[in-house]
Amino acid sequence: MKIGIIGGGQLGKMMTLEAKKMGLHVIVLDPAKNCPSHSISDEHIVAGFDDAAAIKELAAKSDVVTYEFEHIGAGPLIELEAAGCKIFPTAKSLKVIQDKLTQKQALKEGGAPVGEFAGVGSAAEVEACGKVFGYPLMLKARTGGYDGKGNFLVKSPGEVAGACQVLQRGAAALMVEKFVDFEMEISVLACRTESGQTTVYPVGQNNHADSILSETRVPASISAETRVLALNTALQVMDVFKGVGMFCTEMFVLKDGGILINEVAPRPHNSGHYSIEGCVTSQFENHVRAVCGLPLGDTSLLLPVVMRNILGSDIESRGRAVVDGLDRALAVEGVKVHIYGKEESQHKRKMGHLTVMADTLELAAERAGEAWSQIKIY
Amino acid sequence: MKIGIIGGGQLGKMMTLEAKKMGLHVIVLDPAKNCPSHSISDEHIVAGFDDAAAIKELAAKSDVVTYEFEHIGAGPLIELEAAGCKIFPTAKSLKVIQDKLTQKQALKEGGAPVGEFAGVGSAAEVEACGKVFGYPLMLKARTGGYDGKGNFLVKSPGEVAGACQVLQRGAAALMVEKFVDFEMEISVLACRTESGQTTVYPVGQNNHADSILSETRVPASISAETRVLALNTALQVMDVFKGVGMFCTEMFVLKDGGILINEVAPRPHNSGHYSIEGCVTSQFENHVRAVCGLPLGDTSLLLPVVMRNILGSDIESRGRAVVDGLDRALAVEGVKVHIYGKEESQHKRKMGHLTVMADTLELAAERAGEAWSQIKIY
Repeated sequence: MKIGIIGGGQLGKMMTLEAKKMGLHVIVLDPAKNCPSHSISDEHIVAGFDDAAAIKELAAKSDVVTYEFEHIGAGPLIELEAAGCKIFPTAKSLKVIQDKLTQKQALKEGGAPVGEFAGVGSAAEVEACGKVFGYPLMLKARTGGYDGKGNFLVKSPGEVAGACQVLQRGAAALMVEKFVDFEMEISVLACRTESGQTTVYPVGQNNHADSILSETRVPASISAETRVLALNTALQVMDVFKGVGMFCTEMFVLKDGGILINEVAPRPHNSGHYSIEGCVTSQFENHVRAVCGLPLGDTSLLLPVVMRNILGSDIESRGRAVVDGLDRALAVEGVKVHIYGKEESQHKRKMGHLTVMADTLELAAERAGEAWSQIKIY
Repeated sequence: MKIGIIGGGQLGKMMTLEAKKMGLHVIVLDPAKNCPSHSISDEHIVAGFDDAAAIKELAAKSDVVTYEFEHIGAGPLIELEAAGCKIFPTAKSLKVIQDKLTQKQALKEGGAPVGEFAGVGSAAEVEACGKVFGYPLMLKARTGGYDGKGNFLVKSPGEVAGACQVLQRGAAALMVEKFVDFEMEISVLACRTESGQTTVYPVGQNNHADSILSETRVPASISAETRVLALNTALQVMDVFKGVGMFCTEMFVLKDGGILINEVAPRPHNSGHYSIEGCVTSQFENHVRAVCGLPLGDTSLLLPVVMRNILGSDIESRGRAVVDGLDRALAVEGVKVHIYGKEESQHKRKMGHLTVMADTLELAAERAGEAWSQIKIY
């Protein structure tokens, strides 16, 4: 079985490691010659994500095509799908999800819990929404955002024009969301096969720094009721998009224990990296199983687990990545370190992560913090 | 950090997967262009294991050199070591271990529990030993054997001449061992860094079919006393050989609960594959950590675990490997399947393995058996 992966970054790399373990043939498409997947894939098509001919070549060489990120043109994938190629998640679901406005509309229509939102075409329309939703108001580029990029928290009507200008620099269409005063951010992975087998992972509790995920703790410190709500919501999302493969639903836990969906990613997710060590079957293995039409594996949590991101610690400089303190980090009990192998480190770029399992979540968090403070990539 | 691995079979592949996870650069040396490690390593030197120039090239490109099997000429490694290259396990320990007679002598001198044995130069000497040790008598080629190859169980004096002829076909030097009427075969992995940090894994219980490992169950069904004896023996072995890296000690459990060492392998071992899913840190990750001078990871068992080998099921034919029933095997709860990606399947060749963790060993064994009966590679 040959699997084509669009994107050879860390998510593509971790998919590839699982696919190779199971003896599958992996072809990656990525413009970077030395991307993290390069050295571990059977074949690497060096081409841009918008290179329709290269994507066609990938599909021709593969039994199934998947992708590690959702910011790719859906057009070529829709064409390939129409021509009978297997693309998972489907190009149709990708197209709906990659536009945050149509994503929210689909979720709302499907009865999933979302906050108030609206598409906006001008600063005047943003201000009109501000009168209804109040401030602060979340202004978002409908496409292309990640790690807080493409989002702007507008604190007052006076900031609207400037915020629109910043986000529309890339000529992006915009939307607004009513600000959610949440208690906690959580995420839940769910996975589905084409034949409809579905599975869901434990709830992860996410901490962010500067809008970038810094830590995921599993299980989340939430009530049993909220847990059930969260798991059900993740499954509802699979049903709305008829998802095939791994989907991650980021949610807000409200002060009353209720749940609102923040965003859905149609792929394995940073907040699910804990599953590599923490669950019987990782998000990457189950994604590979799902897109290849294989039965899904057990998602049980083995022990409480904490994942911490390792970001590029350069402030001023960019350059060839140097890992410092791997030995000191690994000296902390129970630590597993993943270094993605990106050639160049940049300030706050995701360069690796580490995971700690322990008998208690507190102990895992303490050890993860200790190890994390020892390792630097610059 | 660049790690050179002599051998790109399944053990080299699993080392490579762990090394790549940690962002290390891997160069493999293997004569087979499409060996299991080929597609996942950064570089592949296609050369024979006895090609001194190629081994020199590997060492020149690597910060440390290790190997996946012990049947390589120690000569080139000893030279490289003398020239300052890091070779782990050391060439000196390799040289002693790869000759089963000097291995047993070293163990005996170090006070480790071994049965009676003797080097033999002729059929007459074997018969002389038979008079002392009795029959059946285990006749072994001193070098090059694996999976029962190179061993001959001589049942009576009349079989001595024939057995010598069979084993000496490769001009092998021979040794004899007094037959051990054991209760059970077990193995224990232990790992040591150059600086002397040492760790030991849980005891695995091994079942063989036709002298090839078929199943490992962890934890082994042995008494607490035997367990302590086994763990101590594995650590004693590390001390005897001043082992750096992963060593596997195969032992016999006697009817009185005592222990005798069968053989030592200076590398990760088939009977330790359970550790990939079953332990916090796998034998492959700890081997990589050890040879790279990194601290060793936690070897705790997460849950009872059973590993089953998947052997090539051809009887008559050899040919391009075909995997049948991966989907049916993965449909069994908790099953993880490893397919090595060998191009050619042969009768009884090790083509993959599967692992099942469960709340009880019985359940894990039942599920492993069920999954194993579903998958065929031919």
